[in-house]
Amino acid sequence: MSQGTLLYAQSGGVTAVINATAAAVLQAARKRKVRVLGAHNGILGALREDLIDASALTPAEVAALAHTPGGVFGSCRLKLKSLEQDRAKYERLLDVFRAHDVRWFLYNGGNDSADTALKVSHLAEEFGYPLTCVGVPKTIDNDLALTDCCPGFGSAAKYTAVSVRECALDVAAMAETSTKVFIYEVMGRHAGWLAAAAGLAGSGRNAAPHLILFPERAFDSADFLAHVATTVKRVGHCVVVASEGIRDANGRFVDEEGLSDAFGHAQLGGAGAALATRVEQALGLKVHWALPDYLQRSARHLASQTDLEQAKAVGHAAVDCALAGQNAVMPIIVRDSDAPYRWHIDIAPLERIANREKKLPAAFIRADGYGITAAARRYLTPLIAGEAFPPYRADGLPDYPTPRLRFVPRRLQRRYSPG
Amino acid sequence: MSQGTLLYAQSGGVTAVINATAAAVLQAARKRKVRVLGAHNGILGALREDLIDASALTPAEVAALAHTPGGVFGSCRLKLKSLEQDRAKYERLLDVFRAHDVRWFLYNGGNDSADTALKVSHLAEEFGYPLTCVGVPKTIDNDLALTDCCPGFGSAAKYTAVSVRECALDVAAMAETSTKVFIYEVMGRHAGWLAAAAGLAGSGRNAAPHLILFPERAFDSADFLAHVATTVKRVGHCVVVASEGIRDANGRFVDEEGLSDAFGHAQLGGAGAALATRVEQALGLKVHWALPDYLQRSARHLASQTDLEQAKAVGHAAVDCALAGQNAVMPIIVRDSDAPYRWHIDIAPLERIANREKKLPAAFIRADGYGITAAARRYLTPLIAGEAFPPYRADGLPDYPTPRLRFVPRRLQRRYSPG
Repeated sequence: MSQGTLLYAQSGGVTAVINATAAAVLQAARKRKVRVLGAHNGILGALREDLIDASALTPAEVAALAHTPGGVFGSCRLKLKSLEQDRAKYERLLDVFRAHDVRWFLYNGGNDSADTALKVSHLAEEFGYPLTCVGVPKTIDNDLALTDCCPGFGSAAKYTAVSVRECALDVAAMAETSTKVFIYEVMGRHAGWLAAAAGLAGSGRNAAPHLILFPERAFDSADFLAHVATTVKRVGHCVVVASEGIRDANGRFVDEEGLSDAFGHAQLGGAGAALATRVEQALGLKVHWALPDYLQRSARHLASQTDLEQAKAVGHAAVDCALAGQNAVMPIIVRDSDAPYRWHIDIAPLERIANREKKLPAAFIRADGYGITAAARRYLTPLIAGEAFPPYRADGLPDYPTPRLRFVPRRLQRRYSPG
Repeated sequence: MSQGTLLYAQSGGVTAVINATAAAVLQAARKRKVRVLGAHNGILGALREDLIDASALTPAEVAALAHTPGGVFGSCRLKLKSLEQDRAKYERLLDVFRAHDVRWFLYNGGNDSADTALKVSHLAEEFGYPLTCVGVPKTIDNDLALTDCCPGFGSAAKYTAVSVRECALDVAAMAETSTKVFIYEVMGRHAGWLAAAAGLAGSGRNAAPHLILFPERAFDSADFLAHVATTVKRVGHCVVVASEGIRDANGRFVDEEGLSDAFGHAQLGGAGAALATRVEQALGLKVHWALPDYLQRSARHLASQTDLEQAKAVGHAAVDCALAGQNAVMPIIVRDSDAPYRWHIDIAPLERIANREKKLPAAFIRADGYGITAAARRYLTPLIAGEAFPPYRADGLPDYPTPRLRFVPRRLQRRYSPG
């Protein structure tokens, strides 16, 4: 064993392949004979000194992570503020790191996590504590700067394209006497990457999805309803894919409709439900809608092979960076060519990634605002290519083991207090 | 070619494997050298004389149907009433059958379709027209009488169990700082078969789904909320599976809550949304919910091998029955043993199936009303066993071809008028 410990933490919403990144981190560290701790429930576990002995997992348990969704050590939503505002928390992190001889910190998340990793590295420098901080990319939102794409996105994109294609066949078969308008709500509050991926479900003027609503375009209710009506007239039905984050020209989310129940309580809604209500009321057409919610980010059963390979590659690369002392960086995916699809891993500074957000380029959205362009297809197609089915058990369910986790004893007297 | 034509029609909601039944019908008929017509959009096409020359499909096109969801010839929701009330329609059907020398009528649907096929056979007898009517079972609701299970259900059940398992891993990873209660709404307005299938996602007191709400049990809001609160306290989160058809003791659906938008319009809701709202209001917990809607019945990408085999078997058997002159019957699935799972096809009279509905047996629902029993697991497990992945294209999507359909020329002067 080398001296020092590598701490790995997951952050934010999990993906179908974040555990594949975890597996790669563990495997790479083992090869280099480095001890690994996992933070329980992300950065919270690091603050609380809830640390899991990841080196105690068997090689088979580690290998199985590559086909198991969820987050093996747990994740959390906790954004640390500036070094000034949250100084006590950052110092606490360093205390925990010191106590467990953590020399390498790998933070697997999105742009918030990149920011946290960067700040931790600044503080360590300030205190003269030898620490290498590496961000590891992950987000189904695909909105990280610099990297060509984000691990987790390709699988969610594949799930979305396949699901929309399947539902479209269902709707088409029944449209004459049943549902005329089908609305599929995708995640992506700020960026329309997943909405765009739905466009891969078909091509051609009459193929579903007929209308895609992107958060990058202001939602115009009258124009949308007119397009729905025209499509139903022409095709017989209309499949709509709506980003959860669509807003009107005044910046109001379409689900901020003031819906309420009989007691005046605000009703939990969503863009899909709100659009369905509008279509039914304005056009009098039978509507159905689907809200895949967490299904789209945990559907490991339909992972993309490209995505799985990239999720593993960033994990391996992050360990290599860390052990080479490359501080405050993130391994990113660089595209060499669309077809055949070729890519490699490069290293980028966290400060060029932290807190930035990559929106869907205007060149990916069709001129009328309701579909994707050929350029979008060229970009998206390789990301959903290839299947990476998990093994299945005899009872018909995928084999998703949840390994027993062993916590290491705490070494600090002081407990973490969130205040 | 034998004399006479076989007419095949699909009815009601399509399934992931109804086209596999269609493929089997076409293949069996070809072997027997019988010409097949497909009714466009189900019984409507038969009434309108919109008939597709199914024999013109190439063997490769027919084979591909076995892995393509949707309904190849189109389906519809149209329930014919009694022979007295809808006599003109039934007579019109016979006119169309006579004009195209239809001697065998295969109607692929649920209990309504069984009823229609039965009535058509009665009328043919009355008119002395030589016709053999055979029902072919299909429904994700699994509520047909006599048959042990219904083609289409096993695949929807597998989709449900896998999706709930995947979402549960997601929720568990994030529960401490994010969603505490996750609600998954399944289809099944009257019978809780799909809700029960969700129970296969886990076993043991702390495994998801923690609470299942069946339409066979009166929904008690206070008791439900108390169970949610206890589960969150014990496990840290709570995964709920709710049938769309749950009702309170007075028979009111939980989504008939009087929800309305700012203009007083009724809001399209659903059990999932209604429960999510109640949980959030009563317990103040962060809630997410998923509404898979048509995804659950069209997810051919996750079909069950058992289901696929049974869907094909009933198609083959229906052709055999028809050509053997077995009138007013339906091929059904008989279970010989649970483990190893063995089954065979038998033939049952339509009059014992038409208009009946098989609910989830009380012995399948746990004493507390919120889970499934060992007996339910024994019944359900073999139905989701085995994977039957469709072939995938290089672009990452399943290969779901939609063959070009060729209509045969109309032979009747008179057009169908729905009045």
